[in-house]
Amino acid sequence: MNIKSYLAKKKAIVDKALDKLVPPAKTFPASVHEAMRYSLFAGGKRVRPILAIAAAEALGAKTSDLLPLAGSLELIHTYSLIHDDLPAMDDDDCRRGRPTCHKVYGEAIAILAGDGLLNMAFEVLSDPRRTKAVSANRLLSIISEIGAASGVHGMVGGQAVDMESEGKDIDFPTLEYIHTHKTGALIRASVRVGALYAKASEKSLKALTRYGERVGLAFQIADDILDITGKEDEIGKDVGSDLKKGKKTFPGFYGLEGSRLRANEVADKAIHSLRDFDRKADPLRELAKYIVNRVN
Amino acid sequence: MNIKSYLAKKKAIVDKALDKLVPPAKTFPASVHEAMRYSLFAGGKRVRPILAIAAAEALGAKTSDLLPLAGSLELIHTYSLIHDDLPAMDDDDCRRGRPTCHKVYGEAIAILAGDGLLNMAFEVLSDPRRTKAVSANRLLSIISEIGAASGVHGMVGGQAVDMESEGKDIDFPTLEYIHTHKTGALIRASVRVGALYAKASEKSLKALTRYGERVGLAFQIADDILDITGKEDEIGKDVGSDLKKGKKTFPGFYGLEGSRLRANEVADKAIHSLRDFDRKADPLRELAKYIVNRVN
Repeated sequence: MNIKSYLAKKKAIVDKALDKLVPPAKTFPASVHEAMRYSLFAGGKRVRPILAIAAAEALGAKTSDLLPLAGSLELIHTYSLIHDDLPAMDDDDCRRGRPTCHKVYGEAIAILAGDGLLNMAFEVLSDPRRTKAVSANRLLSIISEIGAASGVHGMVGGQAVDMESEGKDIDFPTLEYIHTHKTGALIRASVRVGALYAKASEKSLKALTRYGERVGLAFQIADDILDITGKEDEIGKDVGSDLKKGKKTFPGFYGLEGSRLRANEVADKAIHSLRDFDRKADPLRELAKYIVNRVN
Repeated sequence: MNIKSYLAKKKAIVDKALDKLVPPAKTFPASVHEAMRYSLFAGGKRVRPILAIAAAEALGAKTSDLLPLAGSLELIHTYSLIHDDLPAMDDDDCRRGRPTCHKVYGEAIAILAGDGLLNMAFEVLSDPRRTKAVSANRLLSIISEIGAASGVHGMVGGQAVDMESEGKDIDFPTLEYIHTHKTGALIRASVRVGALYAKASEKSLKALTRYGERVGLAFQIADDILDITGKEDEIGKDVGSDLKKGKKTFPGFYGLEGSRLRANEVADKAIHSLRDFDRKADPLRELAKYIVNRVN
């Protein structure tokens, strides 16, 4: 299979679904709606929704009814980017080659756009018009899964430790905590949301969860490498921004070459988690490779 | 009935429930857990959870299984206070007589504490260990209700318009929009959550919704009056802070005396919405009076 054309096809489907989930930019109050859409449609790769879709496909499920649920993962991812970029947090002016949300709309509206997107994820997940094909009990499991990944036991906790660690000489377990919580939790949840939607058996859910954890780690190592080696016009933000902020990242412990080896090793392990799956899991296998070899 | 002892009793029950919902302050990462608890246990009156409880009681329901759901309303209310107080928003240093969250923990952790509380509301609402007595379908309705009140169609939208209106000579419909969204939406939702939990008939739900809308409006008018006439040590924040920020409030349109009359009129209408309810709705009736006559 050709992973690039698979990704392009799925991204188009996800983008269309997201466009339906979020009110038009001119909806009153326009500032916050515009800001939400500005960040949501800033050229994201839609890795999380696509992981959910590919996991459901690996189990042989049709995915049209999964789209609103998969979209909600992107709403949450985008909220976290907007808040993480704020001056009080990572203070980033540029993301995906464009000024960050608060640079365009001001801090107040950026905070509210993030809040609005986070809320909207749960509005979508509990909206009977969007989710009627999914049983109430499964929806609650999915809401619980996403809430746990997004909240203080997940992304919020990871970002808090990341904030506290800036400029400090952190140890490897602390870096691992930041990685598994700030990035890993929602990636793991994305795979699990697809699996829960597709009524995975306990055994399949376990294997996919392992896959999700490994892919999440590989993704973050690759991100840390790209922060050093990436081309600015490709990654869309300042190269070396972690270093400038005094953030110790994966290459700080393992070196660049060691980090590359580790990323590939972890991606191989992710693929190995899928050993009992048939060809329908090929997109997941290719995604694991893509995630470590991407250039942005 | 004695509304003050009713409120004190219910507040103690809600506080105990909230203490169980939120992890201990020393939970890793401690900063964000501490900040969440700092703002959550800052002496709030628990008006929203108590409205939910009183609505369920008005319908004859037992409320022990409602407590986590009612508590989630307070988690969302507290998140909104933390974010509204931020320097980029209302820039308030003092709330309930104590320094605001960001003054104590810094802006980054305050933003994250707000995010954490908002997320936690949905984690609680979808947590089978906490909500097993409520059917999955009813839980989804309740999540949808709270999400709509909290998000861009509710509180977030209201705060966005409030932000955009600072220092501007707004018209009365704009003030009404701010009121019904920023404060009114969650108060209305609180009453409806109690009603949905108690399996209200369509007719009862409609009456309680009207009650909630009117009580929400009365609450906000009273708030605007208190910002002018309140005693600093009673309301716990600077008197006249709306005025200082150039915010036009209810008394700016109706005058102080006119606002007092209007608040009482709206509270009477709220009580009138309950005309088909028996004595079990007395706490709701007394709450409507209390809300306009409170001193903080």
